[in-house]
Amino acid sequence: MRATYIFGAGDVRVLDAPDPTIVHPTDAVVHVTRACICGSDLHPYHSLPPTAAGQTIGHEFIGVVEQVGSDVTSVAPGDFVIVPFAVSDGTCQFCREGLQTSCEHGGFWNDAHLGTAGGQAQAVRVPLADGTVVKVPGTVDEALYPGLLTLSDVYGTGWHAAVRAGVTRGDTVAVIGDGAVGLLAVLSAKQLGAEQIILMGRHAARTDLGREFGATDVVAERGDEGIAKVLDLTGGYGARKVLEAVGHLPAYDQAVGIVRPGGVISRVGVPQYERGQIGWPVFGKNVTLTGGPAPVRAYIEQLMPAVLDGTVDPGRVFDSEIGLEQIADGYRAMNDRTALKVMVRP
Amino acid sequence: MRATYIFGAGDVRVLDAPDPTIVHPTDAVVHVTRACICGSDLHPYHSLPPTAAGQTIGHEFIGVVEQVGSDVTSVAPGDFVIVPFAVSDGTCQFCREGLQTSCEHGGFWNDAHLGTAGGQAQAVRVPLADGTVVKVPGTVDEALYPGLLTLSDVYGTGWHAAVRAGVTRGDTVAVIGDGAVGLLAVLSAKQLGAEQIILMGRHAARTDLGREFGATDVVAERGDEGIAKVLDLTGGYGARKVLEAVGHLPAYDQAVGIVRPGGVISRVGVPQYERGQIGWPVFGKNVTLTGGPAPVRAYIEQLMPAVLDGTVDPGRVFDSEIGLEQIADGYRAMNDRTALKVMVRP
Repeated sequence: MRATYIFGAGDVRVLDAPDPTIVHPTDAVVHVTRACICGSDLHPYHSLPPTAAGQTIGHEFIGVVEQVGSDVTSVAPGDFVIVPFAVSDGTCQFCREGLQTSCEHGGFWNDAHLGTAGGQAQAVRVPLADGTVVKVPGTVDEALYPGLLTLSDVYGTGWHAAVRAGVTRGDTVAVIGDGAVGLLAVLSAKQLGAEQIILMGRHAARTDLGREFGATDVVAERGDEGIAKVLDLTGGYGARKVLEAVGHLPAYDQAVGIVRPGGVISRVGVPQYERGQIGWPVFGKNVTLTGGPAPVRAYIEQLMPAVLDGTVDPGRVFDSEIGLEQIADGYRAMNDRTALKVMVRP
Repeated sequence: MRATYIFGAGDVRVLDAPDPTIVHPTDAVVHVTRACICGSDLHPYHSLPPTAAGQTIGHEFIGVVEQVGSDVTSVAPGDFVIVPFAVSDGTCQFCREGLQTSCEHGGFWNDAHLGTAGGQAQAVRVPLADGTVVKVPGTVDEALYPGLLTLSDVYGTGWHAAVRAGVTRGDTVAVIGDGAVGLLAVLSAKQLGAEQIILMGRHAARTDLGREFGATDVVAERGDEGIAKVLDLTGGYGARKVLEAVGHLPAYDQAVGIVRPGGVISRVGVPQYERGQIGWPVFGKNVTLTGGPAPVRAYIEQLMPAVLDGTVDPGRVFDSEIGLEQIADGYRAMNDRTALKVMVRP
């Protein structure tokens, strides 16, 4: 089969790879129907040191089960499944609490510990299949692929931001970042009943989609100017809930600047920094900082019906679709911001 | 009257000061029955640059109303009142939400903005009296003074730590710090039904009191050794709720080390640092960081009945009582840690 490897910053290639097989009785092998490129894939694309061996990459995919191990009971060959970006056993104390990203036996894709490969490939071995994948009921129309694919990461991640922030009916929410996660955080805040949703982003095509998802205001400015705009839009008080979907320190500092006293900053952008301000500007206002890697597995059953019946269309974040062999072009397009999110057809 | 002034690090004196009077119609003048020295008073005691004029100090006191302005309706001369460490109007949006420390018209003691003096004095002008003070019903026995005095700050602050953390029945809680706030965070966690309460502190007399307040385990070790002990006491997972009652960076780092995935760090020690780790060790575990200056005003009515009827005895944190003229000795004793908390009789 063919699979995507990264050999260092800017160096993505599609190569022949061994067909995945069942290794443990809890495994499934999934034939990938659609995969995609994540904003977080751009971090190694920017900074991975050159490596002769290369490593597989990709962690968002949907597909059809090809084989299952003898212990797998929840899915069978032929089932269409959504595969979350984290592997989880579904039975440990963390999974039972809905925190599958902290699963005691789980892990991620391209994870040496689990022996997993990346998902930007024609097929993938999925460990702990019963705890990890979610079956999509019925026949799956191709038109639903983009929406279902967002449930493997970006929609569940945007939802996590909003849920962890405690977004509620009538709330004032600011979303920092107009990438796919930020836009789906807007959609999630809207679904949870937020009244004012301020989207901070500079790319008109993206913020226009954000408005369609429910943003009531768009702030293109950054830094002090952006903070002043948000304060102005919120009566001088700031937003009760700030959803930070970027992961860089200036975005965090912006969040601190625009959060209302007693409010919440919910981060889902993987922090590309180790330390940040948590002194008086955060403490003095009784601000809560929360968030983390989204346990998307916990949300799929809840979010899927509205995707299947067309109530919401999170798949609109995909503005480009390419074949697997062209995936290096997809990385370039996302890196150059000429594409918002690239879907890959293996 | 006599009042306490600080002229720089280690230089506390009691001087003659003008008797407070009603300035605004919403003011009350309170004759101080008991005041006390706070762990946070030790910060200027350690580091205040020398100042020729000096400044008043103190923010915890109980007393009897002497005069009220024409707009004050909730208290009258002769009423015994608890005075929180923050002034609040009781009517702004933040006060209505129970976040009186962010009151739009409030402030603190020895606050230039409000023109307030410190509370380690014989009498104090209390602005916004209706929103700030709480009347104690009935005749107040002297034996209740210590318990009632804790409601002006340390008990409400310990309670805030536990409430913000969401401590609930059966919970696993770790409290960092064996000062008065830490010990009352233990008491609060116990009242909220925590099952395991690990107190991290090194002073046996204090941690013994902590055990009486409800601590099930005491960890004297700090740093990596302390973290290892707490992990050991919690099945290797860490504490679901960590109440940080110190305010120094090593205590925060300890909190990050001992918090369970999906858990909460609730800080009530005023951070003596600007930046701290909020990268993967916090984000990756979906840890929530919360807390801040306690809106003790919001808690007094709720906590007072159990103090009045003797169900709890938070006043046990006072292990020393001195006259106002001896207050410099009190600062020295708290600084040298020969006293846990010093009550002052003006």
